Amino acid sequence: MGTNIQVKSDIEIARDSKMKPIVDIAASIGLDADDIELFGKYKAKLSSEALAKLKTKESGKVVLVTAINPTPAGEGKSTVTVGLADALNKLGKKTMIAMREPSLGPTMGIKGGATGGGFAQVLPMEDINLHFTGDLHAITTANNALAALIDNHLQQGNKLNIDQRRIVWKRALDLNDRALRKVIVGLGGPMQGVPREDGFDITVASEIMAVLCLASDLKDLKLRLSKMVVAYNYDKQPVTVGDLGIEGALTLLLKEAVKPNLVQTIEHTPALIHGGPFANIAHGCNSVIATEAASKLADFVVTEAGFGADLGAEKFLNIKARTAGIDPSAVVIVATIRALKMHGGMKKTELVNEDVKALRDGFTNLKKHVETIASFGLPYVVAINRFITDTELETNTLKEMCEDAGIPVALTEVWEKGGDGGVELAERLLDVIEKSENTFAHLYDLSDSLEDKIKTIATQVYGADGVEFSPKAKKQLVDFDGFGWGLLPVCMAKTQYSLSDDPQKLGRPSGFTITVRELKPSVGAGFIVALTGEVMTMPGLPKLPAALNMDVDEEGNAVGLF
Amino acid sequence: MGTNIQVKSDIEIARDSKMKPIVDIAASIGLDADDIELFGKYKAKLSSEALAKLKTKESGKVVLVTAINPTPAGEGKSTVTVGLADALNKLGKKTMIAMREPSLGPTMGIKGGATGGGFAQVLPMEDINLHFTGDLHAITTANNALAALIDNHLQQGNKLNIDQRRIVWKRALDLNDRALRKVIVGLGGPMQGVPREDGFDITVASEIMAVLCLASDLKDLKLRLSKMVVAYNYDKQPVTVGDLGIEGALTLLLKEAVKPNLVQTIEHTPALIHGGPFANIAHGCNSVIATEAASKLADFVVTEAGFGADLGAEKFLNIKARTAGIDPSAVVIVATIRALKMHGGMKKTELVNEDVKALRDGFTNLKKHVETIASFGLPYVVAINRFITDTELETNTLKEMCEDAGIPVALTEVWEKGGDGGVELAERLLDVIEKSENTFAHLYDLSDSLEDKIKTIATQVYGADGVEFSPKAKKQLVDFDGFGWGLLPVCMAKTQYSLSDDPQKLGRPSGFTITVRELKPSVGAGFIVALTGEVMTMPGLPKLPAALNMDVDEEGNAVGLF
Repeated sequence: MGTNIQVKSDIEIARDSKMKPIVDIAASIGLDADDIELFGKYKAKLSSEALAKLKTKESGKVVLVTAINPTPAGEGKSTVTVGLADALNKLGKKTMIAMREPSLGPTMGIKGGATGGGFAQVLPMEDINLHFTGDLHAITTANNALAALIDNHLQQGNKLNIDQRRIVWKRALDLNDRALRKVIVGLGGPMQGVPREDGFDITVASEIMAVLCLASDLKDLKLRLSKMVVAYNYDKQPVTVGDLGIEGALTLLLKEAVKPNLVQTIEHTPALIHGGPFANIAHGCNSVIATEAASKLADFVVTEAGFGADLGAEKFLNIKARTAGIDPSAVVIVATIRALKMHGGMKKTELVNEDVKALRDGFTNLKKHVETIASFGLPYVVAINRFITDTELETNTLKEMCEDAGIPVALTEVWEKGGDGGVELAERLLDVIEKSENTFAHLYDLSDSLEDKIKTIATQVYGADGVEFSPKAKKQLVDFDGFGWGLLPVCMAKTQYSLSDDPQKLGRPSGFTITVRELKPSVGAGFIVALTGEVMTMPGLPKLPAALNMDVDEEGNAVGLF
Repeated sequence: MGTNIQVKSDIEIARDSKMKPIVDIAASIGLDADDIELFGKYKAKLSSEALAKLKTKESGKVVLVTAINPTPAGEGKSTVTVGLADALNKLGKKTMIAMREPSLGPTMGIKGGATGGGFAQVLPMEDINLHFTGDLHAITTANNALAALIDNHLQQGNKLNIDQRRIVWKRALDLNDRALRKVIVGLGGPMQGVPREDGFDITVASEIMAVLCLASDLKDLKLRLSKMVVAYNYDKQPVTVGDLGIEGALTLLLKEAVKPNLVQTIEHTPALIHGGPFANIAHGCNSVIATEAASKLADFVVTEAGFGADLGAEKFLNIKARTAGIDPSAVVIVATIRALKMHGGMKKTELVNEDVKALRDGFTNLKKHVETIASFGLPYVVAINRFITDTELETNTLKEMCEDAGIPVALTEVWEKGGDGGVELAERLLDVIEKSENTFAHLYDLSDSLEDKIKTIATQVYGADGVEFSPKAKKQLVDFDGFGWGLLPVCMAKTQYSLSDDPQKLGRPSGFTITVRELKPSVGAGFIVALTGEVMTMPGLPKLPAALNMDVDEEGNAVGLF
């Protein structure tokens, strides 16, 4: 989200843009009226028939957009994703976007959407940021239907011998609601269920979101749902959805949500927006189904992953790409001078001041992420997302530092100029794809132990000296092996603000260890979450929530949404 | 839901039916592509522009379908509603349906949809019974956003001085989940909210559902939302959504849900399916917006109300019709011989046996509802919804009893024959509309006291000797007058199974009084709920939930849904 010469707000730019009917966008990628299911004039889902047809087609090139560790200064990863795709289309490359769909929850709390910004946005942004096509509502419903069926199982005799103190399946709402983090349910006597401790996560933290995003089709979705661990029995053995016999019902609730959503950018680039799991306790990427479909429909797919390269890209490459058999062609690493200056020690309030020293110090953060991407054997380009406050000296310094280190770099001005502002980046990207060697390989093998997988990520991606496991985590490593989960990849839940597990350590920290507090199985999604520190899975609302300024105007348009 | 010669199940009949594209259905009532917003090929919402245009058009005739007190034998009110509309179209009368949309929640629990049955169904029934166009999800979200904002208000300093023990706004999910009836939220320490007792209702019991169904447009929706009482402060004064300043945000979340949904029957009669509030703690009718729109688009609208005439029709006539300025043209009262035999004392297992005496005894229930409708000054027809087990003697007896009492009556076989099975009823209906006097008047004036309104309903509609008020209710009558709520209509929450407040008393009980235990303000919806006995607002799941049999087949079709 940029703060460039902001003559118009994002929502004003969005509203002044003329969308094409989504049937025309579909036609531009070879889809006819029967291949899509309309949601109004400007949104559609791809039909199951269309998805099945695509499976046999050849795949285009997949480009991943990632970033440095996020700071309050903003990086604009989604904006660059959108602008880069627009630019590639301008250069005659048939390009699509695959992106995450935003959670409605935070909208009520803090202003800000997840559909890009300025002239690099996906539309219709109001709809996408509100109920969209109902995918998140379907996931919420499936999540809570499962919870209700678990509690009903306890109530109706508990055949599976579930230990009510060891139910790990939580309820979910697509809202920020701190009062639901820790609750007691089942109060009121024998007819009102079995009293027990429980809690609510925000919907995007539900394992069902991760499952939906890693499933290859409806059949695979059902298989993954059946494997989800919901509790342990009194013999401390895992109890799954399959044990409860309700994977069919959950699949039924998700049969429409599993179809990717087609929309367009301001410049009419087709975009599939689908799924949006957390990037800490989950893998933070849009659905495999969307990325795959986009890669069949276009020659280039620009997609993104959550947070910085230490979290989002690492998981995209080690989890999603492995699961889906995706061979990425290149990675774009987004940085801003403002954010690098914060990594170099500046406060947010001081960022308007030129500070080449801070920039040089903060460059180490970018450098580390570049090294990480290189260690995957992938071509890459650094995208410097320009802000109005960047001075010429700063811009030149950053470019020089990149060039001195042999890092391909391009300036982008997509917020202000849309695709035109991304042409330099697009050209540089095409260049590295053509000329650089691509020896993509995952950083660890699935046959490595869970402990080794975690150590590999901590040392190679974060730059840690090593990993400490809490007594609980140590016990879990043994238990999980026993349950047959040792061959799953690892999903690290770590603060996004630092390469370390301490959010205060910006730049490129060294001489630290990572502490794994606890493990959490996401067997349906197909990974083991390693929790370092506390991870908030249900956000709260601020003192003055954005809801206070929201309204609908006479014509039924959103007011105060962004 | 009939159990006639059931060669095919409802879902099989539905699936074998060939729907017309919804654009064609829209065209048949004069709506073009810009007047509707498509949800796939067979569902659409009317656009705000279309709704605004309709406001100035002349209204067609509104026919209300109601029933005797429901029994486990089944009456088939929705089925008759659909079949009657099909029949009227067959007779050359341009007719539409306005119906409630089903709640997804119970679907997971007990088989059975709410879209009619046999050859008198609205389609696509799978979609309508699952997520449909997301209206209920939007209501759930708005309900829980409000709850989160209330708890956040407590957390952030509680400027409004809300008494946390007197928060009356509950959370909601569109699920059957008894473990959520009584909960404690806000546990975990000072950062996790303020601990307090809370509970979840099923979404259709949320006041927001009633508000959406009584609002005349988006502006009125916002006004009603702002009036909703969510808590009392430490001075025991009501705190409203308007006091919190978030009616705009809630309206924003509901701006699409407020548009009615267009679908079709098996015989292509256009149907608006929109909103579905509880018929006990709310008024049990589809939205005013849908009924009004249908009456502008067609010459006849067939609509229904929940439960029997003592609840649904009374509320349709005293609350909805008054609020919306609807002058109904006639009422159809649905009865079955099976159900009347149960009202006459037979057990469900014995119903296959001919029993004219039980039928005669049970007829008293029908007779009372006929008298009630007559007391509103409305023309009416009794519809005998035929079942395969009805004997000729029983059928003739019931017809004779009606004729002897001067009650217009018609047989219907719409489950088996669709519109053809409803022609006799349609003809009889047109006849009474043409020939009978219509002196429609509400049973009470809004200027009557709340106490008198309740007494009028209890004595005139239920046949009670009088009303007793609990000490709590007595105090509330005084308080509510003080809050300025005395001029609102009354919404009775009473068992649907009996005319009395004792579900065991079938037929036409006499010599009873009604006990009002408690009052509940629904000031946004615009009525005061009078609770008699316990009303369940969050259902539970049965021992073997329907979810266990649900699945999706290879083509992505629902399995085990009905």
